[in-house]
Amino acid sequence: MTSWAERVLAGDVRAISRALSAIEDGRAEAEHLLRQLFPHTGRAAIVGITGAPGSGKSTLVDRLAGRYRREGRTVGIVAVDPSSPFTGGAILGDRIRMQGHAADRGVFIRSMATRGWLGGLAERTAEAAWVLDAAGKDVILVETVGVGQDEVEVARLADCTVVVLVPGMGDDVQNLKAGLMEIADVFVVNKADLPDAGRFERQLRAMLEMAPERDGWRPRLLPTVAIEDQGTAPLAEAIDQFAAAMRGKGRESQRRIEHWKRRLVLLLERRLAERVSRQIDERALDALAIQVAAREKDPYAAVDEALAKAGIA
Amino acid sequence: MTSWAERVLAGDVRAISRALSAIEDGRAEAEHLLRQLFPHTGRAAIVGITGAPGSGKSTLVDRLAGRYRREGRTVGIVAVDPSSPFTGGAILGDRIRMQGHAADRGVFIRSMATRGWLGGLAERTAEAAWVLDAAGKDVILVETVGVGQDEVEVARLADCTVVVLVPGMGDDVQNLKAGLMEIADVFVVNKADLPDAGRFERQLRAMLEMAPERDGWRPRLLPTVAIEDQGTAPLAEAIDQFAAAMRGKGRESQRRIEHWKRRLVLLLERRLAERVSRQIDERALDALAIQVAAREKDPYAAVDEALAKAGIA
Repeated sequence: MTSWAERVLAGDVRAISRALSAIEDGRAEAEHLLRQLFPHTGRAAIVGITGAPGSGKSTLVDRLAGRYRREGRTVGIVAVDPSSPFTGGAILGDRIRMQGHAADRGVFIRSMATRGWLGGLAERTAEAAWVLDAAGKDVILVETVGVGQDEVEVARLADCTVVVLVPGMGDDVQNLKAGLMEIADVFVVNKADLPDAGRFERQLRAMLEMAPERDGWRPRLLPTVAIEDQGTAPLAEAIDQFAAAMRGKGRESQRRIEHWKRRLVLLLERRLAERVSRQIDERALDALAIQVAAREKDPYAAVDEALAKAGIA
Repeated sequence: MTSWAERVLAGDVRAISRALSAIEDGRAEAEHLLRQLFPHTGRAAIVGITGAPGSGKSTLVDRLAGRYRREGRTVGIVAVDPSSPFTGGAILGDRIRMQGHAADRGVFIRSMATRGWLGGLAERTAEAAWVLDAAGKDVILVETVGVGQDEVEVARLADCTVVVLVPGMGDDVQNLKAGLMEIADVFVVNKADLPDAGRFERQLRAMLEMAPERDGWRPRLLPTVAIEDQGTAPLAEAIDQFAAAMRGKGRESQRRIEHWKRRLVLLLERRLAERVSRQIDERALDALAIQVAAREKDPYAAVDEALAKAGIA
């Protein structure tokens, strides 16, 4: 074992930071480190928190972190900044509010920029959580804006997925139904002090009552006012109850196996994509692109030719 | 040539619809058809239109389509519904406004649902445009919500990328800067009748003046009030000017080559992903996931084993 992995396992902040940067940049050394850390993972509770921009996710994460700390649990926070040109600045702005935890060595916070990643978002975020798990954090909160497919997948790769809604965001709750039901273990109605909150919560609750159980668990719904730290305790409890339910019914393993199947497929695809970028040379690709642009060759024929040349065919 | 391809080339609405469904579902027959259609593509102007939810993209697309029709040009519209649980219903709702074109055989409108696609969004949308190009549409408008990475990539795969902004969406225009500059050929400030529009437009214009030229083109900025059909004519003109500039400076081909390089890489990755799902058997993956969940094997070792078994290693 290298001293880098040992230092991560000992909770060394700089070693952890370096590990997350290596993952972020897609550096080869990350894989070597992750493999060494892997046997030491599986202890942390990994909680994915997603919601629309402006739903108050970051504040909620901040309050949850505070609560876990008061209970003596250590916390890792991974905030995914999808680097969409339209949401780019907002999330990093929210992070400034987290400075309250800056002096607390029991909290590790990392905002992951994703500019230039096309795909791989969910997998890399899961790897960041894997480092923090190995580093001994008790709870890992993975925060992501629920705006695109990859972003939602980030939250799905957690053990427990929390979906944050706000009253009035969906004029028609029915529109949200199918997609949310598939991913949420716990719903939060944040900003529950807004005038419309009661009606919104009732609609959601009616929807949840019709939902089938999944792994013996029916999604919970909890109102919060994150900015006032209201409702955080019952939320933390619901997350713990979910974890206990999964363990207690022996279903945690089935869920974990499904989880790993999904991740292995993602990893397989990434492995192959890496091979493509390594083995297909740039000049050959240029030549093929010129032929395709001139309509002399169709893109599928070009790709098959490139694969054959790279010996992957 | 099969009669399916012939019917698409003849502009047969049912044949086109079937082709887009095949692409949407990722059916193998789509590739066969696309290869036959490919030599007949490259004639249409493909315009990507992206913006945050609520920016009025759909109305703008509707008005642009109306304008092109009055000029005698045929139009294809591909609207990508990213199926994020948070935005799920909104785009399809917008489509209802398009019904004004329903009786016009010169407009083909298709909303593409993307539920269950992980990755491949940009590539499949580009393939849909490829069908409409072959089918003889003069202008193809590809509309996507600029919310996630894949969604933004959709707009980048067009010949000309239009980014729709609304006053007040960015309190701090600077935050939007880097990402938008990379993708936009034309900026639209929609809802330009809002009180704050003047200030917003001035800020953006100042930003654009500092931007470097790209391919000899500096992004234009055009105010519109799409709902009133104001500003659509200058916008359509700017799009035409962009196309002419790219052609006139002989740069279109360079841009097209870069475009095809990016698409070939995406296609290579998809090809390999398809091979993974075909050659890795489900039971082997189950067995590996169980070992990984139990921490008996690390995910990288599992993936390498799976690739070796599938003969791809």
